[in-house]
Order: sequence, then C-alpha cells, then structure tokens
Amino acid sequence: MTFKTMTAAEAATYVKNGYNVGLSGFTPAGSPKVIVPEVAKIAISEHEKGNEFKINLFTGASTGDSVDGELVRANALNYRAPYASCKDFRNGVNSGAIAYNDMHLSQMAQELRSGFYGNLDIALVEALEVTDDGKIYLTTGGGISPTVCRLAKTIIVELNHAHPAELKGFHDIYEPADPPYRREIPVYAPSNRIGTPYIQVDPKKIIGIVETNKPDEARPFNDPDEVTTKIGQNVAKFLANDIKNGTIPSSFLPIQSGVGNVANAVLSALGEDENIPSFNMYTEVIQDSVIKLMKEGRIKFGSTSSLSVSSDCLKDIYDNIDFFKSRIVIRPTEISNNPEVARRIGIISINTAIEADIYGNVNSTHVCGSKMMNGIGGSADFTRNAYISIFTCPSVAKGGKISSILPMVSHVDHNEHSVNVLITEQGIADLRGKSPRERSEIIINNCVHPDYRPIIREYLAMASSGQTPHNLHAAFAMHTTFVEKGDMHLTDWNEYKK
Amino acid sequence: MTFKTMTAAEAATYVKNGYNVGLSGFTPAGSPKVIVPEVAKIAISEHEKGNEFKINLFTGASTGDSVDGELVRANALNYRAPYASCKDFRNGVNSGAIAYNDMHLSQMAQELRSGFYGNLDIALVEALEVTDDGKIYLTTGGGISPTVCRLAKTIIVELNHAHPAELKGFHDIYEPADPPYRREIPVYAPSNRIGTPYIQVDPKKIIGIVETNKPDEARPFNDPDEVTTKIGQNVAKFLANDIKNGTIPSSFLPIQSGVGNVANAVLSALGEDENIPSFNMYTEVIQDSVIKLMKEGRIKFGSTSSLSVSSDCLKDIYDNIDFFKSRIVIRPTEISNNPEVARRIGIISINTAIEADIYGNVNSTHVCGSKMMNGIGGSADFTRNAYISIFTCPSVAKGGKISSILPMVSHVDHNEHSVNVLITEQGIADLRGKSPRERSEIIINNCVHPDYRPIIREYLAMASSGQTPHNLHAAFAMHTTFVEKGDMHLTDWNEYKK
Repeated sequence: MTFKTMTAAEAATYVKNGYNVGLSGFTPAGSPKVIVPEVAKIAISEHEKGNEFKINLFTGASTGDSVDGELVRANALNYRAPYASCKDFRNGVNSGAIAYNDMHLSQMAQELRSGFYGNLDIALVEALEVTDDGKIYLTTGGGISPTVCRLAKTIIVELNHAHPAELKGFHDIYEPADPPYRREIPVYAPSNRIGTPYIQVDPKKIIGIVETNKPDEARPFNDPDEVTTKIGQNVAKFLANDIKNGTIPSSFLPIQSGVGNVANAVLSALGEDENIPSFNMYTEVIQDSVIKLMKEGRIKFGSTSSLSVSSDCLKDIYDNIDFFKSRIVIRPTEISNNPEVARRIGIISINTAIEADIYGNVNSTHVCGSKMMNGIGGSADFTRNAYISIFTCPSVAKGGKISSILPMVSHVDHNEHSVNVLITEQGIADLRGKSPRERSEIIINNCVHPDYRPIIREYLAMASSGQTPHNLHAAFAMHTTFVEKGDMHLTDWNEYKK
Repeated sequence: MTFKTMTAAEAATYVKNGYNVGLSGFTPAGSPKVIVPEVAKIAISEHEKGNEFKINLFTGASTGDSVDGELVRANALNYRAPYASCKDFRNGVNSGAIAYNDMHLSQMAQELRSGFYGNLDIALVEALEVTDDGKIYLTTGGGISPTVCRLAKTIIVELNHAHPAELKGFHDIYEPADPPYRREIPVYAPSNRIGTPYIQVDPKKIIGIVETNKPDEARPFNDPDEVTTKIGQNVAKFLANDIKNGTIPSSFLPIQSGVGNVANAVLSALGEDENIPSFNMYTEVIQDSVIKLMKEGRIKFGSTSSLSVSSDCLKDIYDNIDFFKSRIVIRPTEISNNPEVARRIGIISINTAIEADIYGNVNSTHVCGSKMMNGIGGSADFTRNAYISIFTCPSVAKGGKISSILPMVSHVDHNEHSVNVLITEQGIADLRGKSPRERSEIIINNCVHPDYRPIIREYLAMASSGQTPHNLHAAFAMHTTFVEKGDMHLTDWNEYKK
C-alpha cells in the first residue's frame, strides 16, 4: 500500500475542534513540526468566524514552539498533559486558560490506555521512514508514540528528511501489556534491548504522509558557571565518597540526570572527577554533555527517551552514527522512566529543585505555591525508585534575594520520605536515615547560603514542638516577604511572634 | 547443633548500649515479645547508675507495647525506623527525645543492606520453629526478618508456642539481590510463591533460644459506624462504576487496603456490594474484615506482610488452618509492598488520609504540620504505583470542629501527581486527568462537608492566579484557627485580606 501524500495544511484539516490529539516526541526532539502550526491557523480562522476551536493535547513531554507555542498563541489549547516548558504555555496555564495535568511521565501511556482521558482521535507522528506494512521508524524522541499510534483512530506521519536514514535502529519499541496480563519489563542493564526498532501499526490507520525537512528545535544551555560547577563538584565528591565507603558498589550504578544548566554542569563534573568510574546512564533525556562524555569514554552507554541536543551536537552524532548507535538506545518514556527498572538496576537520580525546605521536601514545579514553572516531568519516576536520590540547586537565586532553601516549600513534588541528598554550591546534606530535626541541622549548616542561616534559625526558634517543628503562621513568611518587598532578607519574624 | 536455651533476661544482656537492633514482625504480629521488656529493665537499671543505655531499632512496621512502649517508657530508644504507632512513642518523637526516620516500608530492608544505618548488631526474631541447620520458620509477620537475620552479627530466637505448628508454610521468603545484580521479582499474581517457607541462616549466628507462649498483642478496631459505612459504600460505588465503564477490567484488580477503622469499613462495603466481583488482595496487613470475607468467598486470596488480627480472629484462622493456608501468603515487606509488583499487577490502593487539600495533596502523618501521628507506612509504596490510587477520610473530625479537607495540607505525604481519587462520606472526587482548578471544584462540591464549603470557597476567592491558586498568608488559617480557637468554623478571612 502506498500512503497518500499531503501538505501540512491539508493534514491539519483532519484535526477537529475538541479532538484528543497524541504526538510523537519527547522535548522538541522527535515532535511533529509542520502540521500543528497549520492547525493553529485553522483555529485562528475559526475563532474569527466566532466558532469554537480547541484541542486536547497528549505528548511524551515538552514539545517545540511549533506545537505548544503555536497552539497557545492561537488560543487553540483546551487541555494538556503531561509536561510543557514554553513561556506562552506557562502564561496560559497560570491565567487559568488551559487545563494542565502536570503528571509523572512514566504514567502517561498507561493512563491513556486505561481510558482516563477518553478516546484518542488522531496521532501526529514524526518519522524517518514508514513501510507499506505499517512499520513506523521514529526520529530523535520516544515519548508515548507506540501507545498513541495504537490507540488513535487515525495517524498522520510527518516524514522528516532532516534526519539521516542511519538513525534507524536507535529505538527500542516495547509497550507492556496492561494488568492483569503484564509481565516483567525485562531490562536488567541500561543497554538491554527488549523490543523492535519500529512501531508496528495497522497501515490502514495511516491516512496521510506529510514530507518535511525541518530540524529539531534545539534549545541551547548555558556553559557551567562558578556556582553550577561547584554544585557539580559537590555531587561528584558525594558519589566518590559513597563508592569509597562501599555504599555504592565499586562498579558504580547507572546515573539519571535531569534537564537544564545545573544538570549539564553536574554531568561535566562527574566526567572530570577521576574518582568517578566511567558510567552508564538510564535517563529520559540525553543532552550535549552526555555526547561529549561518550566521546571521551567517560559515559559508556545511555538509555534515554530522547536526543535533546543542540544542532551542532546532533550533527556530530550523525557524523559518527556507528559510534553512537552502539552506545545509545531511545525508549518509550514508559520504559525509560519505568519505576520497576529504576529500582531494579539501582539508578542514582540527580534532579534540580526550584526550592527545598529544611526537612528535605522539594518543590520542582510551582513558584510561590501557585505559578507553574514547567512540570514534574520524570523526576519522581526516578527519585521515588532510586538507589540514591539527589536534588541540586544553587543556594540562592535572583542575586541573593531568594533563598532556595526555606522553612517550608510552597508546593511539594518530592517529599521528605523520598529525598536522600540535597546539594548546593555550599555543600552536601546527606539526609539518609536522618530524622527531620537532624535533617534541618545538616541542611542549614551545609546547604543554606550563610546570609540566610541566621534568618532560618530564627524561624526554627519560633516553631512548635513535634517531629517536624513548624510555625504555621510564619511558614511562608520568606515567600510573602519576597513577593511584597522583593528580598527575603527583609523577613521580619517579629510580625509572627505573639 | 542444638541451640542454647536461655531466659529472656539472659538474652537481653546480649543487647548493649548503642546497638543497632533488628526485629522480626510487622505490626504486633510476629514481633518478639519477651526479650525487649528485659532490655528495658536493663536500661532503667543502667540509667539509675548514671550510665547511658539506648538502642537503635529497626523493624518491619509498628510493634506491640512490649517493644515500643517498654523501650520508650524506659527512655531506652535513641533511633527508630521505619514506623511505629504507640502513644508513648508518639510523645517521645514529638518532644524530640527520639530520632524517628518515618519512611516507606518497602525500602527499609534495601536501605539496611545499602549501609545507610551502619552495621546491625543483633536480630531478635519470633519463630515457630528453628532447625539445627538454621532454618527459621516465622510466625504471623514477615517484615524485614530475612534481611535482619542475614545482616545481624548474632540472632536470638523467641520460640513462641502460642502459634500452632500448622502455621508453617504461610510464609514465602524471598530477598532480592542488590543492584547491579537484581533480577525481576517474579510475582505476576497475588498468589504466586517465589521463595521458601523459612529463612535460612548460618546456625552459628543463633546464640540463643528463648521459649515463650505469648499471643500477639492484638489491637481491636471499631465496627463500622454511619460515616465509615457511607465512605465504604462510596468506594464500592466508584469501583463498580469503573468496572462498568471498562476502566477496570471485568476480572477486577487486586485491592490494597490500609489499616484502621475506615479501612475495615471499606472492605466490608466491598464485600457487601454485589457489583464488586470476588477479589484478591495484595496488601501489607490482613485485618479481621479480610478473614471474614475470605470465609464468605468474597476475597479469594490475600498476599500480606502480616496477619494483624484480633485474638478471636487468629483463633478462627488456626481452627481452619488448611482453608486459610491455601488463601494467604505472608511475604517480607520488601515484596508485599514492592513497587515493581504493585505496578505490574495493577493494584487498586485504598488508604486513609489525616487531611487532604482542595488540589488533591494528602497528609498521612503530621497533625498541624508538626506533630507525628504514626508514619507513612506502606501507603506510598502502593499509591505511587497503583493502577488507581484512592484516599478516604471522614469529611470532618472532632465533632465537626475540624474539616479534613483544607486549602493546603500542612504536610504532604502523597502529592497531587499521585492521588487519583478522594472519597469521604459526602461523595467521590474523581481527580484522574484533571487540572488543579478542576480538582478543587470537584473536591469542594463532592467531598467537603456542606458546612465548610462556603468557608473554603472564601479562601479560593482570596487566592492568587496560577496553575494552583493559593494565598500564602492564609493557606494555614483554618489550622491555626483550630489551634487557637478550637473550631475551624471560626476562621476569619478578613484578617488575611489586605
């Protein structure tokens, strides 16, 4: 069977108002790029006519501006799960215009299958190749593609010629059966392959092919600076010490690392520390730093749900594709982030906090308890099942006007029961096995910026008795002081003393 | 080899000041009963002489008064993990006298093996039988027994003749290898057996046997009342509807149920609802209600870490031991609560909240953010990996002076990302796939007591914009009003309006 070729504009007409739409990709990597902007145009035109036009969007993680950005600016997004990171989207969510279900990435595919969201009307999937018998070869992202291809009533493929044919073989597609029929996920080491390099679909469901030649919308990260370098060195120091004392086996364990500037700096520091053996990664995103360390032999293998790298870095991968093909596997997020696998292989999770509190709770999502930054992503998939879970952040933000460590976090994404280690540029708080009072001492002494230590100690002096001493009148005083006076240093505890 | 028989008092002399002590059991079921009170006597005597005497205690879960009660009253407890529930202990923890690491029960054994707590000096283990070659047959609790027996330098066995020999065979002992050597936990259905009915230890480590004849310190639960019955009926109604609409397969899925009066009422209601098929349990505690439903054929099989039942109920089990042996397996907590297994077999988790908030966050542990009630137990092991996670609570407490649903919980044990359904006697809030604003509407309308709906709506009217609207000045006003005026109805929002 030969599929019908169509323009992006024609393809977009198959996406109707109110549709549940599933996309390929994880981050901008592997997300469709040309059909959705045409959907946005239709939305604008329908709105001008006074008609309703909004869709519900399901993805692996964030996408590029050509998806979330275009749809939000066209006011065409009604509902979105499980993660997004673009500024327009953030504004839409925080104003209440978009219903956003920020959730654990490992669960998106399963929850779609369980029917929590109703039926999936259409899947838009970026591919390298589609065979007549319905084998879809994905590009740089895994995400929820196998599930949306299977569940959606129809599929339109963006055949993207910006990717070389040799990318074929990077993916390992495996979709578990649902309870009560599920068996073990047979991954015992990051490099294990358990599926096929393609998604098999019923070819009759593929109603069209749109040919494109558009590269991934790569996002640049900053080079490590003094603070992020110091955070990275502290992570390396902590891990080296745990290897030395035998808590981590001498063969080391697979590393999971979050996304962003701090994560990039942490990986660089691990690469540079001679006390850290060459290692494997079991993670959701491979960034530039991973590729660099692979070339240096410091990272041996990477299991991921996407190649979310800069354009130069992707070119480098494509120029050395045989080297990388033996060192990288791209998985569906349900497998890359799988809790069963994470606990079995004993990952060391390293994620970034927006803020943490003196008892070890971590906020990854909400500024001042209300405003969504991006979302929890896969951080809890890994943290909750890690052999050792680490969170990092600079001790202060906004030129020192914000302390990232506070009496109480304004939103809890990872709680005290699941956070093992907190690391800032100031130092390392090893919270394992500690009671809340013990944790507060270690965190204040080792991680809080010296400017804020007396301020936080003053809070503790006002706190009630209990396992986890707090003063509920004053727990968010540093937050509200920042909002009202612009600087947490100005917190006046006398206002809260009765 | 024949083991040395000794008195409890003699055995207690092997427990020294500063020791890390590991116990068998899970709840009072299967915990040692006679040696620890003698340790407490030694502590009192040493304290009278002006000497230090405190131990660090590691268990499967809570114990009986003969362990936590005796040790706390003797001021002999320095450190405790992962869970306890007695009143004296609670007071000791909240005053700061005892360092308590309240943690996920599934992780206790793994963290001991990883060395987060140092070496284990001695294990005190209740058994049914010990063979000369070192086979220990446990009684009514699994807990962390296999791990403490393997890690401890020495073992003393309490051979308890209160249990019949026919209890042999209820246990399925399996201890996973640690990363990077771990394989799958091969449980695919609640009734699968994967290990041995005994713990194999090096017999040379068993330095003594203490013979006893002391029954488990059973804890009675209240019969369902009007409120807990209604909660149970709402849970049954929710599940029946999900079976009807196909979200839950018609063969149903295994149930996990927490401990306590509400949990007992929920199970009774599931048993009575003809729209709920007979079911299996994959849970940490089997209580009286489970035994009753097994006899009625409503529960087909139960996987548990303990038989935590009343004395009469235990006698009933022992009187019909063949019937129950084919219907119950007792596992180490690492397996009964295993996240890999929970997600694979697709459990429906049902646990009790102390308080919940309008966005779906749940507090299971701390009263007013500071005072420890008991601990998180296994609730997050199950919730975080459930097919559907449910929390229940009465909508009000203290005769209506407390609303169990609040603007913001004062401590987060289970966050908005992991709580699917909230149920009170008022109704059902199905939060699956919903954004925080949508959740707040459903929770206020369906679950909050009518008295408190306008009060909580007034809070929301004062809240900022954002994905999760809050007012950080007023988020805990209902808590502080209760503490200061004794009734949340008296919350005066005008104090917070600027």
